[in-house]
Amino acid sequence: MRTTSVGIFKVATKGPGDVSGLMSMIGSGEIDPTSILAILGKTEGNGGVNDFTREYAVAALCTALAPKLGLSPEAVEQRIAFVMSGGTEGVLSPHITVFTRSEAERPAGLSGKRLSIGMAHTRDFLPEELGRSAQITETAKAVKAAMDDAGITDPADVHFVQIKCPLLTSDRVEAANARGSKTVTTSAYSSMAYSRGASALGVGVALGEIAPDVRDEDVLRRYDLFSRVASTSSGIELMHNVVIVLGSSKASASEFEIGHAVMSDAIDAPAVMSALESVGLGTTPQPGRELVNIFAKAEASPDGNVRGFRHTMLEDTDISSTRHARAAVGGLIAGLAGTGAVYVSGGAEHQGPAGGGPVAVIARLS
Amino acid sequence: MRTTSVGIFKVATKGPGDVSGLMSMIGSGEIDPTSILAILGKTEGNGGVNDFTREYAVAALCTALAPKLGLSPEAVEQRIAFVMSGGTEGVLSPHITVFTRSEAERPAGLSGKRLSIGMAHTRDFLPEELGRSAQITETAKAVKAAMDDAGITDPADVHFVQIKCPLLTSDRVEAANARGSKTVTTSAYSSMAYSRGASALGVGVALGEIAPDVRDEDVLRRYDLFSRVASTSSGIELMHNVVIVLGSSKASASEFEIGHAVMSDAIDAPAVMSALESVGLGTTPQPGRELVNIFAKAEASPDGNVRGFRHTMLEDTDISSTRHARAAVGGLIAGLAGTGAVYVSGGAEHQGPAGGGPVAVIARLS
Amino acid sequence: MRTTSVGIFKVATKGPGDVSGLMSMIGSGEIDPTSILAILGKTEGNGGVNDFTREYAVAALCTALAPKLGLSPEAVEQRIAFVMSGGTEGVLSPHITVFTRSEAERPAGLSGKRLSIGMAHTRDFLPEELGRSAQITETAKAVKAAMDDAGITDPADVHFVQIKCPLLTSDRVEAANARGSKTVTTSAYSSMAYSRGASALGVGVALGEIAPDVRDEDVLRRYDLFSRVASTSSGIELMHNVVIVLGSSKASASEFEIGHAVMSDAIDAPAVMSALESVGLGTTPQPGRELVNIFAKAEASPDGNVRGFRHTMLEDTDISSTRHARAAVGGLIAGLAGTGAVYVSGGAEHQGPAGGGPVAVIARLS
Amino acid sequence: MRTTSVGIFKVATKGPGDVSGLMSMIGSGEIDPTSILAILGKTEGNGGVNDFTREYAVAALCTALAPKLGLSPEAVEQRIAFVMSGGTEGVLSPHITVFTRSEAERPAGLSGKRLSIGMAHTRDFLPEELGRSAQITETAKAVKAAMDDAGITDPADVHFVQIKCPLLTSDRVEAANARGSKTVTTSAYSSMAYSRGASALGVGVALGEIAPDVRDEDVLRRYDLFSRVASTSSGIELMHNVVIVLGSSKASASEFEIGHAVMSDAIDAPAVMSALESVGLGTTPQPGRELVNIFAKAEASPDGNVRGFRHTMLEDTDISSTRHARAAVGGLIAGLAGTGAVYVSGGAEHQGPAGGGPVAVIARLS
Repeated sequence: MRTTSVGIFKVATKGPGDVSGLMSMIGSGEIDPTSILAILGKTEGNGGVNDFTREYAVAALCTALAPKLGLSPEAVEQRIAFVMSGGTEGVLSPHITVFTRSEAERPAGLSGKRLSIGMAHTRDFLPEELGRSAQITETAKAVKAAMDDAGITDPADVHFVQIKCPLLTSDRVEAANARGSKTVTTSAYSSMAYSRGASALGVGVALGEIAPDVRDEDVLRRYDLFSRVASTSSGIELMHNVVIVLGSSKASASEFEIGHAVMSDAIDAPAVMSALESVGLGTTPQPGRELVNIFAKAEASPDGNVRGFRHTMLEDTDISSTRHARAAVGGLIAGLAGTGAVYVSGGAEHQGPAGGGPVAVIARLS
Repeated sequence: MRTTSVGIFKVATKGPGDVSGLMSMIGSGEIDPTSILAILGKTEGNGGVNDFTREYAVAALCTALAPKLGLSPEAVEQRIAFVMSGGTEGVLSPHITVFTRSEAERPAGLSGKRLSIGMAHTRDFLPEELGRSAQITETAKAVKAAMDDAGITDPADVHFVQIKCPLLTSDRVEAANARGSKTVTTSAYSSMAYSRGASALGVGVALGEIAPDVRDEDVLRRYDLFSRVASTSSGIELMHNVVIVLGSSKASASEFEIGHAVMSDAIDAPAVMSALESVGLGTTPQPGRELVNIFAKAEASPDGNVRGFRHTMLEDTDISSTRHARAAVGGLIAGLAGTGAVYVSGGAEHQGPAGGGPVAVIARLS
Repeated sequence: MRTTSVGIFKVATKGPGDVSGLMSMIGSGEIDPTSILAILGKTEGNGGVNDFTREYAVAALCTALAPKLGLSPEAVEQRIAFVMSGGTEGVLSPHITVFTRSEAERPAGLSGKRLSIGMAHTRDFLPEELGRSAQITETAKAVKAAMDDAGITDPADVHFVQIKCPLLTSDRVEAANARGSKTVTTSAYSSMAYSRGASALGVGVALGEIAPDVRDEDVLRRYDLFSRVASTSSGIELMHNVVIVLGSSKASASEFEIGHAVMSDAIDAPAVMSALESVGLGTTPQPGRELVNIFAKAEASPDGNVRGFRHTMLEDTDISSTRHARAAVGGLIAGLAGTGAVYVSGGAEHQGPAGGGPVAVIARLS
Repeated sequence: MRTTSVGIFKVATKGPGDVSGLMSMIGSGEIDPTSILAILGKTEGNGGVNDFTREYAVAALCTALAPKLGLSPEAVEQRIAFVMSGGTEGVLSPHITVFTRSEAERPAGLSGKRLSIGMAHTRDFLPEELGRSAQITETAKAVKAAMDDAGITDPADVHFVQIKCPLLTSDRVEAANARGSKTVTTSAYSSMAYSRGASALGVGVALGEIAPDVRDEDVLRRYDLFSRVASTSSGIELMHNVVIVLGSSKASASEFEIGHAVMSDAIDAPAVMSALESVGLGTTPQPGRELVNIFAKAEASPDGNVRGFRHTMLEDTDISSTRHARAAVGGLIAGLAGTGAVYVSGGAEHQGPAGGGPVAVIARLS
């Protein structure tokens, strides 16, 4: 039976422009550059509007991969899905996770479902569609297409959906105005939250976590509507959503398993343990299993409290609340995982409950 | 048998100047203001040189307590040991912990050791003695005196030693110079670390954790020398060390138990669990026990790594490493404790191993 | 002829809690505490939501002045108008300016108008009135009352109007909701801008700079509507506006003159020079005149440019734009004034044109 | 008479990776890429250890220029002197200044000295030579060589010396240790100041501003020793000093004039005016002259005061003092120059007096 093989490589970086680790694995033949599907990274910027470490990392990777793929740097950026999350506060450690995919023969003895990866993208959006039901509906379609691509049929087998989505710029707002349409916001910064939120709601709709009748006015308001597996990130370089689905499939011959849980708040240690245990890790790990990476979203709870005690993240004029949240949730996850090289990202609108967020774990089976 | 009773009250604050919680407990008779021995607080400043939330909190408490004690605010500050630790990054929640002590009859049925508290102080130091062996030796003596005061004889019964120690100002440096003496540093900021470090080494000497022959040049250099229970904090308002010993004693009739562990690095979750379990808490808490508070020290590991992975705390020009460290370690401890109202403080020179720190837990027995 | 005498004392502070300078001037008889009308200060916090240096400074001043006035600290806060502006970025130097007023005989030989000060306050506002026309209209009335109090009849004689105005808290928003009314915003932070903006528009209406038919929807939108002399600051401790008018009056026997200009952008050096020259200072100061203080408002221009060149203040996630703006405008004004002990405050909605702000200068005549 | 022509192009950037302005000027033929000698830039990072906008900008420029020069990006970095100064606080605007040089016929009618540019570099330093007399002496030699290269003989004709110098890394410190040598410091951050300081002293020695017998222990201590025209910047990518001399020469046929002054403190407006006037600009500019750019160094005065008033830059744990200083001095210079697109850089050890710094102005003559 022909199936898919997936490779996952976590590579530490010495700085946002450092590509030496990946290049050396390509040089040694460990990674086939043509099989690279996506690269998710944590870079050491502030994760805010003026965090240039993200685009610097993407530029460095594209420039380095271009000759290996016989493409221009621009074409590399089109071919591979790059998702860079800025902010390695506290014990978080800068690194990239490289996902590859290739055809493979599924070994005869292999039983059970294994980690599979699928990708899809929506059509380009009009600026006025961002943060509204059009983005939700189209994203839901793309999530289903990516599930197909990954060979996943049961929504319960989807454990993490990473989405890259557009944002508004003043040019885009004006283009909408010129057509007589109004965008959901005129602020670039706010549009990032709207786009992330609508994309996450699209995941929820696709997986049946949310009824399909989400309205425009629910976005960034009805925080009781959320996906338990969505992780969304907005960027200026595209006008469509790129959807990466990670889940479990019989069609995969990979040596990886994936599971997830949902943190109900920023100190939900049992949820992290539960995610670890879902892939045979945790306090008493099964033999022959090793942690590859953890993917989680974090945010300062909007009501100003964590389990009844006031936090000060939202009132701090010196440090943005997203940096606080990544540092704290990163500290907890790193403590339970035993490593700071984990992917903890901020901005969790409709991604898990308010103040909480999804946490997915990938284990390698030997 | 006449013994000592200890009261411990954790009170949330709405801001650094908020004394309403404590005042209301005094008003209701729950706290007798004349029995207050020490107040340890977490305030929501940056924990750095220009963190005025600490002195504001102390000023507000002294002003409020003055009429209750029939003293001037200045006399209140002399009578009660105030230790304010700035920085409630991430999920950490601003609060104060009030320690009271009074004579009491030990109930006949009471078995085992209970939490006891003792205080002592050194003589005033000369500026040139700070950060050097004189401070180490005198602190060691004061620790022993505070153990006596607490009714503790065995160093193994000491679980947390909080010290408030002086720092150098330009006036103090000049006073030393005028006598022909040189201080260990001329920088106020550096002197805080020297004073904290020497004070922690004094605890180590007193408890036999370190041989008594510590030399001047070992301070802030020989990080293999450390105390497992010291927590030190420097302040401008005094020239001597104030020593508060928390431990277990047969002479105490309090309803509290205390235990501790040492985090070997900033992600040492098992150490936190071990500290919790030492007082009957942890994953499966004993019935009739409830967490009062956790006291821990945190720091960015000086070698730039946590368990083999690079951290970026020491190179961040936007956020000081102490804020990063408190956020991360605070996130871990809050996750394991189930609350962000814990005392996690920065600046852990010779307090636990490099990059780690002591963690003590107090439980109430019902 | 009985007139008013005004005293103005600029006092450097060593920290937000330092009252020693003022107390020593009271001790020496230089300042009569019963004559203190208002204290404007620059404190060394971040000027943001969590800047506690402002309330700490007010608390310290009230506690220190209470015994001198035979009042409780709370009553002192009611009697004297305290306006603390947080943020002494760059070369700005922490200080307070104390304004006193008393009856006096106007010397026979005195010709021309001299600096006069007047105060008034509005009625308490309902939460839903903040940031809307009710606040504008009532403020305009209070400005006229304060002009009367100062003995000023011609709006052209008004050079600086400092206003302290309320903000919304969640309790206040809920109180409005309970009455079936909606507040202009539910965010405390945003309400500060709305309240400052409506108050500034009220000044503009009172002085005829703006037509009286300002609508609710103009606040924080029609930035072409502004006052050239308003400086407004919102605080949590009151529900009405306190208005302080500084201007020129024949009824004043003071030894001070005041003038002003409007900076059209953050680098408008000629406007600063013009303000200095309006009171006989500037490049060639008139003999017998000395600078007392400069009062100015600064902000990052909302369109992201200063005279055609992009600035980065609004996209900086590490430093708030108000800190950037105070540092830059403070650097310019301090350079032209020859001292960093000047009052430059952030948040200039409807106070001068977008990106600019009013600048007033007080000189002492000998 | 064959002489040198110099081109100076100030190009605004939309972000650290933006090369579009320069590329378009190369595309239109306005700039010949082979004539580019040096590029000085202001990038919008924090200017601290983790400011990656500097290396990102250099990487983007090298990648873009490589095909135009028929070189690899690495070779471009060797050929052109890139000096990126991070930090565009306040009104400072991100931009690059491109310096070109080519042979030219000096027009017959041209009288007087014109702006000339010369370059030279020292030999590679051993790690233990950085921050010490070897670096001072070799830099002094290179300054003289760069003066020769620029056709300048009189030190009084030198108006700005920009130097790029090495710093220590842990590898370099260890290499020195392995040879039995000790470096001046083991901290990378401190080594930047030492290297900048020694390089600036080298300029002072070359120009006769300082006696040649500067000792190792004078570096970063004897702040009365300084150059009035040095601007130094340390970077990790080299082990030698690159020296760029800007001055006035009869051998130059350029359409530019350069002059300078020294700010004695951070609010020295007259010095800025004097520098402007030295090239015919200032309050009453000569006709046919236009400002090209201003180059200045800024720092927080180490004694904590500016003209007798306390500043808070050195105690601010939230914002580094270099950011404060650039914002304030940038605000003053931009105000006097009428534009925020000026080069104001931090870290002014031995570059001008303590708390002050050099300020050079280039004007174009039409």
